[in-house]
Amino acid sequence: TPSEREGRSGTQSSHRLLAYSDALISIIATVMILPVAHTKVEDNEELKESVQLLLTTKIAVYLMTFLIVTVAWAAHIRLFQVIVRIDDCLALMNLACMMLITFLPYTFSLMATFPEKVLGILLFCACVMVIGLIQSVIVVYAFSRPFLLNEQIQISENQTFYKHHILKVIMRVPIMCLFASIFSFIFFQLSYVLLAIVIFLPYISQSLRWCRSKAIGQVEDTPDSMLFYTYHPNEPLSKERVEAFSDGVYAIVATLLILDICEDNVPDPATVRDRYGGSLTAALQSYGPEYLAYFGSFATVGLLWFVHHSLFLHVTKTTRFMGLLNTFSLAFIGGLPLAYQLTHEFPRNSRNELEAIQISCVIIFFAGIFQLAIWVVALFNERETLHPYVRYGGREHVFMLAKLALYPCVALGTFFLTCILSKFSAPIFHLMEITVPFAFLVLRLLVRVGLALLRLIFCPERPDPRTV
Amino acid sequence: TPSEREGRSGTQSSHRLLAYSDALISIIATVMILPVAHTKVEDNEELKESVQLLLTTKIAVYLMTFLIVTVAWAAHIRLFQVIVRIDDCLALMNLACMMLITFLPYTFSLMATFPEKVLGILLFCACVMVIGLIQSVIVVYAFSRPFLLNEQIQISENQTFYKHHILKVIMRVPIMCLFASIFSFIFFQLSYVLLAIVIFLPYISQSLRWCRSKAIGQVEDTPDSMLFYTYHPNEPLSKERVEAFSDGVYAIVATLLILDICEDNVPDPATVRDRYGGSLTAALQSYGPEYLAYFGSFATVGLLWFVHHSLFLHVTKTTRFMGLLNTFSLAFIGGLPLAYQLTHEFPRNSRNELEAIQISCVIIFFAGIFQLAIWVVALFNERETLHPYVRYGGREHVFMLAKLALYPCVALGTFFLTCILSKFSAPIFHLMEITVPFAFLVLRLLVRVGLALLRLIFCPERPDPRTV
Repeated sequence: TPSEREGRSGTQSSHRLLAYSDALISIIATVMILPVAHTKVEDNEELKESVQLLLTTKIAVYLMTFLIVTVAWAAHIRLFQVIVRIDDCLALMNLACMMLITFLPYTFSLMATFPEKVLGILLFCACVMVIGLIQSVIVVYAFSRPFLLNEQIQISENQTFYKHHILKVIMRVPIMCLFASIFSFIFFQLSYVLLAIVIFLPYISQSLRWCRSKAIGQVEDTPDSMLFYTYHPNEPLSKERVEAFSDGVYAIVATLLILDICEDNVPDPATVRDRYGGSLTAALQSYGPEYLAYFGSFATVGLLWFVHHSLFLHVTKTTRFMGLLNTFSLAFIGGLPLAYQLTHEFPRNSRNELEAIQISCVIIFFAGIFQLAIWVVALFNERETLHPYVRYGGREHVFMLAKLALYPCVALGTFFLTCILSKFSAPIFHLMEITVPFAFLVLRLLVRVGLALLRLIFCPERPDPRTV
Repeated sequence: TPSEREGRSGTQSSHRLLAYSDALISIIATVMILPVAHTKVEDNEELKESVQLLLTTKIAVYLMTFLIVTVAWAAHIRLFQVIVRIDDCLALMNLACMMLITFLPYTFSLMATFPEKVLGILLFCACVMVIGLIQSVIVVYAFSRPFLLNEQIQISENQTFYKHHILKVIMRVPIMCLFASIFSFIFFQLSYVLLAIVIFLPYISQSLRWCRSKAIGQVEDTPDSMLFYTYHPNEPLSKERVEAFSDGVYAIVATLLILDICEDNVPDPATVRDRYGGSLTAALQSYGPEYLAYFGSFATVGLLWFVHHSLFLHVTKTTRFMGLLNTFSLAFIGGLPLAYQLTHEFPRNSRNELEAIQISCVIIFFAGIFQLAIWVVALFNERETLHPYVRYGGREHVFMLAKLALYPCVALGTFFLTCILSKFSAPIFHLMEITVPFAFLVLRLLVRVGLALLRLIFCPERPDPRTV
C-alpha cells in the first residue's frame, strides 16, 4: 500500500507542501496592493492627477511584483511536476526557497523607490541567485533518489539527459542575474534590461525556437517527447495548483478590506463620548459607506471566485497559456481592494467619486474578460481541455458562457450608464452590486428562457434538441 | 464515471469550495492579531504595564475572535461532512455565510471596545442568527436533494430523523442569540453569559449527557450509530480540512511581518538624501533588526508548519479533541507576529527586550507543546488514529517524538538561559533561531546516535531490534 511504501522509504506525498507554498506565494503576490490602497488621495485635488502619480510608481510595483512572483510560482510548479514525492530534506529546502520568494516584493519596492541606486538590484539578484541555487540542489538531490521523481522520468532511460536539461533551464535565471548584478556597477540601466529579459525568457526562447523552425525546417525534438520544461504554450500546468493559487488570491483579496475595517473603524470611546454625545450608532453611521464597500467587495470577489470555480470544474487539463490568462485575471482581482477603497473615500456626487466608480468597473470588466478568455482558449482545444458537457454544443455550454459573460457585461453596462447619468453614479453602482448575486441565482432560468425564445424566433419548426 | 454523473445531475465536488472557505476563515481568525501587534509600546514605560494593558482588551479580543471563528469553522466542517456534494445554489449560500463569518471579528471588537453598549451585541447576534438561518436553509435544501448527502445518510432509512436532529443542533445557536439580543435591552450582562454558553455549548451538552448517563444508566443511543453531530470527543473531523485551515493560519502568520516591512520599511527618498547623505545602505542599516525579525519569524513559523506537516502525515483519522488541541496550538502560532514585533522594537539590553524575548519563548513553547499534545492524544487510540510506523514501538516513533519535542525543549532552554544570562539575551535568541533549522536537518542522525547510545548503556547484550 502507499502508506507502507511511505514508511519504508521515508518519502511523503508532496500535496500539502505544495498547497502551503501556493498559499504563501498567493498572499505575497497580492499583498503589494496594500501600499497602493493605503495611499491617501487628497479630496481637493483631482483624482486623475493623483491616480497618475500612483500609476507611475506604486501600481507599477504591484503589477511587476505580481508578475515576478507568478513567474517564480510557475517555476515552482514546473519543478514539482518533475519531483512528485518529497522527504524531510526537500521540505526544508523548499521552505528556505519560500522564505526568499516572500522577500522579493521588498527588494522590488526598494528598486522602484530608488531606481538609480544599486542596492535594490543587488538584493534582488542575490535573492534570485540563492533561490536558483537551492532549486538546483533540489534537482540534484531528487535525481540521486529516483523514487522521488515523476514516474515517467523514473522509468525513462534518459534520466541524465533530463537532469542536465532541467538544470540548464533552472540555472539560466541565476546566471542572468549574476550578469545583471555585475553590470549594475558599470551601467545600471543594462541590468534592468537583463532583469526584464529574465522575466520574458520563456516567451523569447519560445519565439526564437519558432523562428528557427521556420527558417531551417523542423528542429529535432527532445527525446521521449519530454513533457515538462518545454515552454510550449500547451505544456501542462498542474490544475490543482492553479486552483490553489487562485483560491489564495481570491481569499486574501476578499478579506483585505475587513482588515482595514477592523483596525481603523472601531471608534475611540473618548471620541464617541465627546463628539457624538455617547451615541455609538451615530458614530458608526459615519462609517456607513465603508461597510457597504466591504460587503460589495466581498460579494464581487466571492462571485468572481464562483465563476472561476464553475469554469475550472469543467476544465480537465490546464495549459501554460491558460495559466497566463488566469494570472492576468488575478492581477485585476488583486486591484479590487484599491477600487473599493477609492469608491468609499469621496463625498457623494463629486467628480472623483464618478471616476473611482469607473475605475472599479474597468477592473471588474478586465478580471471577468480574462476569465472568459481562459474558456475561449480551452474551447480551441476542447477535446483535451474540457468536459463534454461544456464543449461546443454540450448541454451546459450556453449556461457556462452566460456565467462567464455576466460580470463583463454588467461592468460595461454600468460604466456607460455612469458616463451618461453622471449624477446617479453611486446608486447605479450599488444597484449593480446588489442585483448581480440574484442574477447568478436565476441565471439558469434566464438562459433557458433565452434559448427557448431564440428557438421560437429563428427555427420554430425544429424540435427541441434536448428531446431528441 | 463521476464526471458524467456530475454533468447529469448538476452537482459538483465540494472539495474546492471547502478549501476556499478554509482559507477565508483562517485569514479572518488570524488577522485580529494585527491591532495587537500594531499597538505602539512606548519605550520609556515598562513593558510589563503596557502588556497588561494590551492583555485586558486587544489580546482578549484576538483570543475570543480566534475561538468564535474556529467554533464557526467546526460547525461548517460538521455541516459539510453531511453534505458531500454541492450545486450552484449551495455554493452561493455558502459564500453568503462566509461573508457574515468574516464580519464577526468587527462586531466582536465593537463589543470589546464598548462593553456597556448594546449595539455590539445586537450586531453580533444578528450575524450569528442570519448564519444559522442560512445553514438551516442549506440543510433543508440538501435533504430535498438526497444525492448531495453523505452516502451513509443517503442509504439510511432515518433521513427525516437525521434532518430534524441536525436542524435542532444548528438552530440552538441562533435561538440562544435571539435570547441574548432580547436580554441585552433588559440586563445586558446576562447576554454575555448567554453568548459564553453558546461557545461552550458542545462541551456543556457533552458533560450533561455524561452526568445523565452516570445518574440513570446508559441512555439510548441515536439510531444507526449516528457518526456526525454527536459532540463526542471521538467524533471524526475531516483531516483534510484541519490541514487546510492550519496551512492558512501558518501561511498568513509567516507573511504578516513582510506586509509591515513592505509598507513601512522602504525609506523616503528625501529622508535618505537629507539625513543619510544619499547613502541607501546607511538608511537601511537602521532597519536591520526588522529584517532579522522577519527571517527569524518566517523560519520559526515554517519549521512549526514542518512539524505539523510531519505529524499529520502519519495521522489517519482526526478527532474533535485533536482538532481542539490543534486550535490551541494555532492560537499561539497566531501570536508569533506580536512576539517578533516586540523583539525588534526595543533597544539592545534593555529590560523590555529581555521580557519581549521571554514572551516569544513562552509563545513558541506553548505552540509546540500543543502539537506534542495532539500526538499524545493520538497515541492513546493509536490503532484508529496513527500509521503503524509511528505507533509505540514503530520504526519512526522516537524520531517523531524528537521532532515534536525539539521546539518546546529549545524554547524552554532559551527561556531559562535568558533568565540566567540576562545580558546576552538577544544573541542567545538569535542563536536559537539560526541553529534550530540545522537541528532539524541532523535530527535523524541525532536520534539514531541517541538510540544506539541508550542501547549500548542499558542493554548491550540485546541485538539491534532492526536486524531482527
